[in-house]
Amino acid sequence: MTELTFDIHAKDGDARTGTITLPRGRIRTPAFMPVGTAATVKAMYPQDVHALGADVVLANTYHLMLRPGAERIDALGGLHKFMNWPWPILTDSGGFQVMSLAKLRKLDESGVTFQSHIDGARHHLTPERAMEIQRLLGSDIQMQLDECVRLPAPEADVERAMRLSLRWAERCKAAFGTQPGHALFGIVQGGESPALRRASAEALVGIGFDGYALGGLAVGEPQDVMLAMIEASAAYLPAARPRYLMGVGSPDDLIESVRRGIDMFDCVMPTRAGRHGLVYSRHGRINLRNAKHADDPRPIDPESSCEAARIYSRAYLHHLVKAGEILAMMLLTTINLAYYETLMTDIRAAIAAGRYADFCAETKARWARGEGPESRA
Amino acid sequence: MTELTFDIHAKDGDARTGTITLPRGRIRTPAFMPVGTAATVKAMYPQDVHALGADVVLANTYHLMLRPGAERIDALGGLHKFMNWPWPILTDSGGFQVMSLAKLRKLDESGVTFQSHIDGARHHLTPERAMEIQRLLGSDIQMQLDECVRLPAPEADVERAMRLSLRWAERCKAAFGTQPGHALFGIVQGGESPALRRASAEALVGIGFDGYALGGLAVGEPQDVMLAMIEASAAYLPAARPRYLMGVGSPDDLIESVRRGIDMFDCVMPTRAGRHGLVYSRHGRINLRNAKHADDPRPIDPESSCEAARIYSRAYLHHLVKAGEILAMMLLTTINLAYYETLMTDIRAAIAAGRYADFCAETKARWARGEGPESRA
Repeated sequence: MTELTFDIHAKDGDARTGTITLPRGRIRTPAFMPVGTAATVKAMYPQDVHALGADVVLANTYHLMLRPGAERIDALGGLHKFMNWPWPILTDSGGFQVMSLAKLRKLDESGVTFQSHIDGARHHLTPERAMEIQRLLGSDIQMQLDECVRLPAPEADVERAMRLSLRWAERCKAAFGTQPGHALFGIVQGGESPALRRASAEALVGIGFDGYALGGLAVGEPQDVMLAMIEASAAYLPAARPRYLMGVGSPDDLIESVRRGIDMFDCVMPTRAGRHGLVYSRHGRINLRNAKHADDPRPIDPESSCEAARIYSRAYLHHLVKAGEILAMMLLTTINLAYYETLMTDIRAAIAAGRYADFCAETKARWARGEGPESRA
Repeated sequence: MTELTFDIHAKDGDARTGTITLPRGRIRTPAFMPVGTAATVKAMYPQDVHALGADVVLANTYHLMLRPGAERIDALGGLHKFMNWPWPILTDSGGFQVMSLAKLRKLDESGVTFQSHIDGARHHLTPERAMEIQRLLGSDIQMQLDECVRLPAPEADVERAMRLSLRWAERCKAAFGTQPGHALFGIVQGGESPALRRASAEALVGIGFDGYALGGLAVGEPQDVMLAMIEASAAYLPAARPRYLMGVGSPDDLIESVRRGIDMFDCVMPTRAGRHGLVYSRHGRINLRNAKHADDPRPIDPESSCEAARIYSRAYLHHLVKAGEILAMMLLTTINLAYYETLMTDIRAAIAAGRYADFCAETKARWARGEGPESRA
């Protein structure tokens, strides 16, 4: 293990900026990873995703094992070649989607049996199979299989799932073996319990991983609970290894989590919002379905580095959204990913300059002043 | 009138190649115009449409008058600015869509009253209003309002509609007035009757237009009927003015129509097919939904000038189509428009080289040899 090099360049409080180096490319941290569920970041050309500043994308083991199948992607030369994305890819292990999407889920010590949400076919996902799938995909950063419980849940259930996830973590590490140029992350579980989060973090560090993720968050809990769980976990994770907060989040979630020592994020928010008429900008969130935009000749942001945010009027974007045009999804997804990646660039610069607290205050003030306060969706 | 300059560079039989010059740009003929119904060529960035070789796009008066409205687009600076397409735009007059899409159509000498297919609102479209809308849009090449009858229809009905379209043609010319830098085309009607087509063409030439279109074709009739109607009309249209075959067609339709003297085309075929898993290529049509592509590592065409046709495997495109991914529509639309525009480039070169008949034979042989014979969809 440990082909992944993580160099921390600067710290500002608990926030830090650095570089993860992998054979396929470097990841500047804090990093936002666009989600490419089914081997495509929806409505985006892969080269455009990279041009916007994304160093790495996430792909979903659950979706790809069902369609088109991991063995097929392997035979075609691996996921990077399949989706024309030559840069790093992180794959999740399928645990979260099995909980949220699959039908007739049955879980035991060996793994989880479920029916595909696509065609009802029966699948058995074990820690060993999750690792095999991610190896077949050629994933650069692979995730252990974990059990995610729906919250709220009795603490005993949360602890049982956390302990099972730890046993699966050991099996995943053994199954991962030695893969030069590839990394394996463990996943901290423990629901909303600081004690369970700490226990999970300490046990994972005992097993030893290239990086550590926080799972089972951003599932509907208030932001302060999520931030408390970050604090309860990060303190027990090694400073020299990357910390990845899975499935998060809104722009405000990102800056608050970075403040608490998180290095990596993934979230469908910018891409999903872009398919539903919502735009994230320096001035907060804009709902382009709103009729007030119908005659507005202004672009989303004349100072953006993103052409789509500069050259199309809000009136045109409103029209495209109302007409259900594919170009609406293409442009708004681009604008949102550009905003997220620009935000990460600015976050990294602020940490390097030792002015992260000021940066957070200024950014939040601009959201609040602008088109309306940033709401956490 | 006649701000539109049409220079014919070469002739080969009845086929000719030339250049239409307008203040916003030149149109190389024979030209294929991608369809941008609602002020967007579906699933395409405008700059990419131009980069593929399109000198002009078509936009639909009917759709734009209903949403977002011609007065609104005018207030926002016109259609070119609205849709970020600074090059020439041709607009149809709405006649065809009123027939095919609108509800509760009622037609009299003054014009046509109909209900919007979007919200049921009542609209009255007259020749004068059709010209006003196209002027508000800022259209470079505007079309007269005509009445399209559904075929088959009794010849008396076809003749009545043709005569009405001629009276509307006169009213449109008067309403168009003088618009420096903009052009007006008349539309030959007459169904499947050579005599009516000739009468329509001669009467339109008597009125005098910048160019002449053939309307009411490509509505389900066999290809030989369509080609016979082109022959019955083109002979009576002035050689020095462009001839535009509306709503056509398949690659085979294009080369056969050019052979008979057609200079301009528009059709939803390449864009619509691209949204439904169908690809046009040098080797004929490919249905990417077909399971035989699931493991095929080959690109659509390794020799294409279009990157999308070269770098994505058929297996990946098949996967995207099956998964209903937006990127499938983006890539296949790009591949199809690239093929259509490349075909037009090759057509122009063959005419200039005086080898158009050979070019047609070679092109058809390649379609037949390839992935299966080209079928006229």
